[in-house]
Amino acid sequence: RLMDAIRATLGSNGPLAGVRVVVTAGPTREPLDPLRFLSNRSSGKMGYALVAAAIDAGASVTLITGPTALTPHSEASVIGVESAAEMADAVQTAVQDADVLIMTAAVADYRPASVAEHKIKKSSDDLTLNLTRTTDILASIDRPGLLKVGFAAETTSLLDYARDKLRAKHLDLIVANDARTSMGSDEGWAYLLEPGKEAEEVGPTSKAELAEVIIDRVASLLRSRRTSERD
Amino acid sequence: RLMDAIRATLGSNGPLAGVRVVVTAGPTREPLDPLRFLSNRSSGKMGYALVAAAIDAGASVTLITGPTALTPHSEASVIGVESAAEMADAVQTAVQDADVLIMTAAVADYRPASVAEHKIKKSSDDLTLNLTRTTDILASIDRPGLLKVGFAAETTSLLDYARDKLRAKHLDLIVANDARTSMGSDEGWAYLLEPGKEAEEVGPTSKAELAEVIIDRVASLLRSRRTSERD
Repeated sequence: RLMDAIRATLGSNGPLAGVRVVVTAGPTREPLDPLRFLSNRSSGKMGYALVAAAIDAGASVTLITGPTALTPHSEASVIGVESAAEMADAVQTAVQDADVLIMTAAVADYRPASVAEHKIKKSSDDLTLNLTRTTDILASIDRPGLLKVGFAAETTSLLDYARDKLRAKHLDLIVANDARTSMGSDEGWAYLLEPGKEAEEVGPTSKAELAEVIIDRVASLLRSRRTSERD
Repeated sequence: RLMDAIRATLGSNGPLAGVRVVVTAGPTREPLDPLRFLSNRSSGKMGYALVAAAIDAGASVTLITGPTALTPHSEASVIGVESAAEMADAVQTAVQDADVLIMTAAVADYRPASVAEHKIKKSSDDLTLNLTRTTDILASIDRPGLLKVGFAAETTSLLDYARDKLRAKHLDLIVANDARTSMGSDEGWAYLLEPGKEAEEVGPTSKAELAEVIIDRVASLLRSRRTSERD
């Protein structure tokens, strides 16, 4: 934690000095009843590494995190959430005065259509669970001027899905990786895609190093945006 | 870990000296696809506390555990599992040479009827998930002479459900608690029920102390069983 503070101070002249960054991390949990939930294998490691890299680069960072076993960087403002709906609310509020939104969280696409008040008792051999779509957080955020970075974790057709998402959600950058090798792992490997550019491969490396590459890219995107605004 | 070893040695003359105990702990995860799963709020704290209490009492302990954030007692043999089916297999094998089975794990009652090979992509607004029953582990174990301890975590009608489970699964002891206050918490509070006896309330206390009370009860059940065998 002392090292956290020292590195944050050193970063105060860094490429993200004065920049306000919101990072989402971890899985969400969508309850069926008071005990059971739908979730996913996201460990939060990529998001927490991005928080550290952004703070080291001088940014002030808000971390909005689902349940993980990790300890966040001591200089981050931390908001703990559980469901996709809670995460959506927290992000909407946090981006009101942010410059950059980095969505690494593995937000559930579907939640149980209804939540039972009491533990569902086993009875019949089969049970049908009705699921309904959650709010698409990245697509619902349209604050002008906000730099939006998304993640695509897929098990097949990685680059195709990532390009679709980049376009559909008007992202400035998307980080695409194979969910089966990346989720829960310390290893970092990804494609970085920007609108109208070729995909660029990063890694295999650590998630900490991949996070630094992404934060460098965010800094250069902010610089080129400021330059073009000045022209 | 040194303290673990010292306490285990002190326990070698304890009430469970020479007794082989299998403890299950934590939640299970039932996959929908390579990333998503159904799970529950069990932290594993009660089970891990029982492992420590049993080793302190001189038992040799096998811990069969779902995914948790906890570090097991260093003197326990640990088998990590994920799904209810994996836990059922591990328990069936482990009880072959055990004297006591303590099932604290919150094993899923239902699993998705089929597991998708690739990440399920969001498409329609609604999705129906077909679930099917998992194997009832406690009911499927019928090794003669094995002392069986079950847990009932409920949100309503606690004692009624616990009595039904005690009878239906031929348990020697059941520990019944309110899932909403116990799951994930460090607090211990429960009813202990044996066949043909009044329920006995323990706590509120710590899970460590509740574990000691349960292990003491297991020791006395084993003693009275040996006495009656001798008669």
